[in-house]
Amino acid sequence: MKNHPDCIAIVTSDDIPIVQRFKESVIEKNQKPEARQSFSKFTEFDSAHLVHNILASDKVMYKGHPIAAVAARNQHKAEELLNLIKVEYEVLNPVTSIESAIRNNATKLTEIELERNIIDNSISPETIVDWANVGGDIYNELGDLQQGISESDYIIEKDFTTETVHQGYIEPHAATAMWAPDGRLTIWTCTQGSFAIRSATAAIAGIPESQVKVIPTEIGGGFGAKLTTYLEPVAAMLSRKSGRPVKIVMTRKEVFEGTGPTSAAHMKVKIGSTNSGKITAAKVYLAYEAGAYPGSPVGGGTLCATGPYNIENLLVDGLDIVCNKQKVQAYRAPGQPQAAFAVEPVIDELAEKLGLDPLEFRLKNAVTEGDRMPNGVPHRRFGCKELIEAMKDHPHYQTPLEGDNRGRGVALGFRWQGGQTSSCTINVNKDGTINLITGSVDIGGTRTSVAMQAAEILGIKVEDVSPSVVDTDTVGFTASTGGSRITFDTGLAAVKAAEEILKEMCSRAALIWEVQTDDVTCDDGIFVCAKNSEDKLTFKELASQMIITGGPVTCSVSANSTGIGPIIAGNIVDVEVDPETGKVDILRYTAFLDAGKAIHPSYVEGQIQGGTVQGIGWALNEEYFYTEDGTMANSSFLDYRMPTTLDVPMIEPVIVEVPNPRHPFGVRGVGEAPIIPPLPALANAIYDAVGIRMECLPMSPSAILEALEKKTR
Amino acid sequence: MKNHPDCIAIVTSDDIPIVQRFKESVIEKNQKPEARQSFSKFTEFDSAHLVHNILASDKVMYKGHPIAAVAARNQHKAEELLNLIKVEYEVLNPVTSIESAIRNNATKLTEIELERNIIDNSISPETIVDWANVGGDIYNELGDLQQGISESDYIIEKDFTTETVHQGYIEPHAATAMWAPDGRLTIWTCTQGSFAIRSATAAIAGIPESQVKVIPTEIGGGFGAKLTTYLEPVAAMLSRKSGRPVKIVMTRKEVFEGTGPTSAAHMKVKIGSTNSGKITAAKVYLAYEAGAYPGSPVGGGTLCATGPYNIENLLVDGLDIVCNKQKVQAYRAPGQPQAAFAVEPVIDELAEKLGLDPLEFRLKNAVTEGDRMPNGVPHRRFGCKELIEAMKDHPHYQTPLEGDNRGRGVALGFRWQGGQTSSCTINVNKDGTINLITGSVDIGGTRTSVAMQAAEILGIKVEDVSPSVVDTDTVGFTASTGGSRITFDTGLAAVKAAEEILKEMCSRAALIWEVQTDDVTCDDGIFVCAKNSEDKLTFKELASQMIITGGPVTCSVSANSTGIGPIIAGNIVDVEVDPETGKVDILRYTAFLDAGKAIHPSYVEGQIQGGTVQGIGWALNEEYFYTEDGTMANSSFLDYRMPTTLDVPMIEPVIVEVPNPRHPFGVRGVGEAPIIPPLPALANAIYDAVGIRMECLPMSPSAILEALEKKTR
Repeated sequence: MKNHPDCIAIVTSDDIPIVQRFKESVIEKNQKPEARQSFSKFTEFDSAHLVHNILASDKVMYKGHPIAAVAARNQHKAEELLNLIKVEYEVLNPVTSIESAIRNNATKLTEIELERNIIDNSISPETIVDWANVGGDIYNELGDLQQGISESDYIIEKDFTTETVHQGYIEPHAATAMWAPDGRLTIWTCTQGSFAIRSATAAIAGIPESQVKVIPTEIGGGFGAKLTTYLEPVAAMLSRKSGRPVKIVMTRKEVFEGTGPTSAAHMKVKIGSTNSGKITAAKVYLAYEAGAYPGSPVGGGTLCATGPYNIENLLVDGLDIVCNKQKVQAYRAPGQPQAAFAVEPVIDELAEKLGLDPLEFRLKNAVTEGDRMPNGVPHRRFGCKELIEAMKDHPHYQTPLEGDNRGRGVALGFRWQGGQTSSCTINVNKDGTINLITGSVDIGGTRTSVAMQAAEILGIKVEDVSPSVVDTDTVGFTASTGGSRITFDTGLAAVKAAEEILKEMCSRAALIWEVQTDDVTCDDGIFVCAKNSEDKLTFKELASQMIITGGPVTCSVSANSTGIGPIIAGNIVDVEVDPETGKVDILRYTAFLDAGKAIHPSYVEGQIQGGTVQGIGWALNEEYFYTEDGTMANSSFLDYRMPTTLDVPMIEPVIVEVPNPRHPFGVRGVGEAPIIPPLPALANAIYDAVGIRMECLPMSPSAILEALEKKTR
Repeated sequence: MKNHPDCIAIVTSDDIPIVQRFKESVIEKNQKPEARQSFSKFTEFDSAHLVHNILASDKVMYKGHPIAAVAARNQHKAEELLNLIKVEYEVLNPVTSIESAIRNNATKLTEIELERNIIDNSISPETIVDWANVGGDIYNELGDLQQGISESDYIIEKDFTTETVHQGYIEPHAATAMWAPDGRLTIWTCTQGSFAIRSATAAIAGIPESQVKVIPTEIGGGFGAKLTTYLEPVAAMLSRKSGRPVKIVMTRKEVFEGTGPTSAAHMKVKIGSTNSGKITAAKVYLAYEAGAYPGSPVGGGTLCATGPYNIENLLVDGLDIVCNKQKVQAYRAPGQPQAAFAVEPVIDELAEKLGLDPLEFRLKNAVTEGDRMPNGVPHRRFGCKELIEAMKDHPHYQTPLEGDNRGRGVALGFRWQGGQTSSCTINVNKDGTINLITGSVDIGGTRTSVAMQAAEILGIKVEDVSPSVVDTDTVGFTASTGGSRITFDTGLAAVKAAEEILKEMCSRAALIWEVQTDDVTCDDGIFVCAKNSEDKLTFKELASQMIITGGPVTCSVSANSTGIGPIIAGNIVDVEVDPETGKVDILRYTAFLDAGKAIHPSYVEGQIQGGTVQGIGWALNEEYFYTEDGTMANSSFLDYRMPTTLDVPMIEPVIVEVPNPRHPFGVRGVGEAPIIPPLPALANAIYDAVGIRMECLPMSPSAILEALEKKTR
């Protein structure tokens, strides 16, 4: 192959020096098995799994797992060369579901042997037979579950499953790498996090981070799936070998088969309530597929499953299950839609049993400031009650729904978001405009929502702020765009930078007026001298004197955010179910979100609508069809059925604003929570319409027909 | 034309809205004529002249002046379209020399009428007949010239001329502009100053600076000629009209005919000395061609002409003469080689008359700390005497030169450099490497010489500093790369940024060790705790804890430098003149420079060698041949004769280091001064070889033959 005239370069895992190192480190880990591995431990293995996932080394873990990459002069020649590669496989029994993964004597996927101390009151042992393929376990307990259960008048316990679904961004993964003769590596790629790509590629290539420049292109959708690396190190190695720039673009089939969808899940939920409608206990078991290597979003599920409710006696256990499928990746509010799909219908059923309005029941149990999350951390102020009240008061909820086979569903979606790091540079131009530089890839208009915050601090028009997203060389370290964090975290960095600029501008005005800096104040872009109120300068006037008062005004700052905290969303949806075909038509959809403060309201509405549509697709249509040997059978947009504009009505967004105490303008994250409620809201609406409780996703026409038939039998 | 199928867009000066505005402002100026316009006033007109020079409006000022630009799908179609343009000219009498420009009733080039009050003791009136084409006058006086002359025992007075020469960079001017539908204009261009291009293009296009992003490409030589704009606004307007990216690349002919060479000059020098070798008086008259619009480098000539010498009674008068030639631009040490070519041979002749060694005579009169420049500003410490002594002591000077028609020449070159603004951003990576960002286009390795200074402050290896030159969006305002200033000015910014980073890193170490920041010191990259000497961290170790001790470490600073100050260079050259052909062969060349502190010695040597070679070309071969109507007759590298490696021997560079008190490491600028001494050193060497004083450049074979013939007649 190497000598084929069309082959410019070929790489396999043998070309990755770090692979060998990881193999050794895995052996070392095995000598020190750890009890009940927590999710924080995953990070230690992340890089190793990342490398194995990029190019399979000893084991090919799933259909779609890359083995070799070939560089040729054009795509067609490369495809021909790939066809010449013959791989000899020793086929093992594939593990393609949670059930088969924990079955006795299942093929063991991971080399890492974990000794486990089963905790008595965990619900896991009820289910787990063989721990071989359990990649991790996360466990939270509040109060006394048994006590809570014993205080219940009504208890409902149910099983739920969801299938593998993909983020479905339009633009496939694409990366171009150029390894220059001076050792500098430049990468152009569509990613949510240029610094993550830099770290991963530098580590894999074994070079310092300063030698790698990652230039993030505008992104054609990510939704979490472009937080990790697939192509960049491979393109880099091909470029190093060939001495040329190398571009790799995935086909849609490769995107479906080779990148990370989100977890299929198996969930058990048991919730008890008193006659008066107080939830006394909940027990939630979540088992999420991680795919080929440990690391599912089950942590997000355990933290948020019962998030909207204050439940004193709570046990949540999340298991991470490895199997022979694509290694899952983040997908908008990772792990939380699945969990809500299991909890919210049980809440709905309890309300029905209690004869309570479902929103009234939720309001009775709604979490408030000071209530604890499953991990014991108390909440600061957020709009859980305000959002439920806004739902109750909304004309949609106030208007009765009439007609056969029609039903209304409501559901909440809770999310908790920690903080990450962003950097920001501001350069003032002599015409009083500013350039604002960040490393946060723009998703959903974050460039503007960050620029608006700087403009607000400086008292200038947002049109005078020119925001840019730059490469990893030219701005301080900035964590990836994800976790609904940019308007919040990078906004904080921009606010901090703008405050420093303002301070410096005041000192310049002081120099001109020959007073102390403290004698200068700035109000809405006008600098005024406290000693002489005649002395006034606009931001632009002062900027024009910048060079002669000490030179350009510029600053770079980094902000470590304290975390966004809780975020709450809710849906009201009306559906009509066709009893002949099982098809669900959405009649009306209203989606609520506590945005804290909507910096750019129409962008927030866009996030609400976009997230809701993805939730609808997940609820009603989307799923990976796997054949028995683990091959995805519907790896095209024709067969993987995402909603189109014809499938959804206008989603009416409603923004609730309960200011976030952690941000100067009250901002919360808005990108992710809207995807959570559609799954249970639609399940609840379908029940209201035709009296069937759907416990598996997707609630496709065939699944609904089957359930309807079962009901009438 | 507009409707021609191949024409994508066409622009003329009518498409530049600012042109009309400038016309009005010029009329306004005429109503308030100002006496004896000084050079500082030029700046007010600069933008107007710049715009007129880019695309001729009412008047075409010179052969090569652009009139229209056409965009087509390819170069050939564009050339065909250009051929279809018919221009009707009303031909005026061209003014093609200093003499014709100041002759009675010369065609008046500028619309600006300047009333002049002739100052009595200026030497200008002796020469000027008609002030119509005098674009400006700069005048300096020290002591009492008449008194000084009367104290002289020997007086020598001479006339000198130099011809138009070009910088001769390899890469022609090239610019690509993309005016996006959102109004953002991106420009890729080879320039010495991306911010200058941004300012000019924003002003001409009438948009805020924040809307223009200039991306400087690596530069294939500039030497001052790429400090201004020619193509960028034109490409931008073509892009705005066409909605497409537009690229313009000059041909070599266009570079010669349409861009700015340096001034041809006419100079008169009168210097008097006592018997004992003390210079008592000097009178220097410099008339420099500005080309089509005012603004020659005569200011550099007047400031530096007598720079190496302390002359108490001094009168220097510089005139800026407009004529129908290319508007001149900066060329390495602008205006100073011409002036040195006039002064240094007179010094040489005086030494001969006095029977003094030429270096000894220079040493007797060498300027020292506290002596005043022509503008009255006293000198701070620099290496004038040290350099002359180094020349005297050098083996080259100590070795006698033997053989017929062989001669040795020496000369000094003086330069004074003010300060400009640079910005610098440093981002620390978690592996302890740093990214260092500047806006200073790299000429001669300045990226590295700036990085080395940051590394020195931080106590890390220079390999751990990755320097980048970025676009105008992503770094604070930074003046252009020119005036020998980058290692000095941008170096100061890098030092300041590194010091801030160091301070922040100390505070991080303090956090880890739970002490005060003042308790942490850093020596050569090792952070040590004063309270516990066991507590030590390397820069890399500390960087790895950056995120958890408060987030990324980053800073942006700007530095307004106080100016580099004086710079001195000197040459010793041995030549052999062929009396049959007039050809001058260089036998040995030693070039000296006070670098203050050579940060990267081999780069400094490269600057010395490169400048010397350009000076040799200027001295012996280069000139614009103009036909009578002002057409350049030798606009190709075949006919415009620059030195090749075959024309020059190895230039031996000698670095003298007298630290500059204005810089923490003692740096001076090294880029320009080396071009100054070759012109007079070669003239002096030719005199020593064959006894002719060459007073016109170039000293080409034909000119030397003519002078030899005149001598023997």
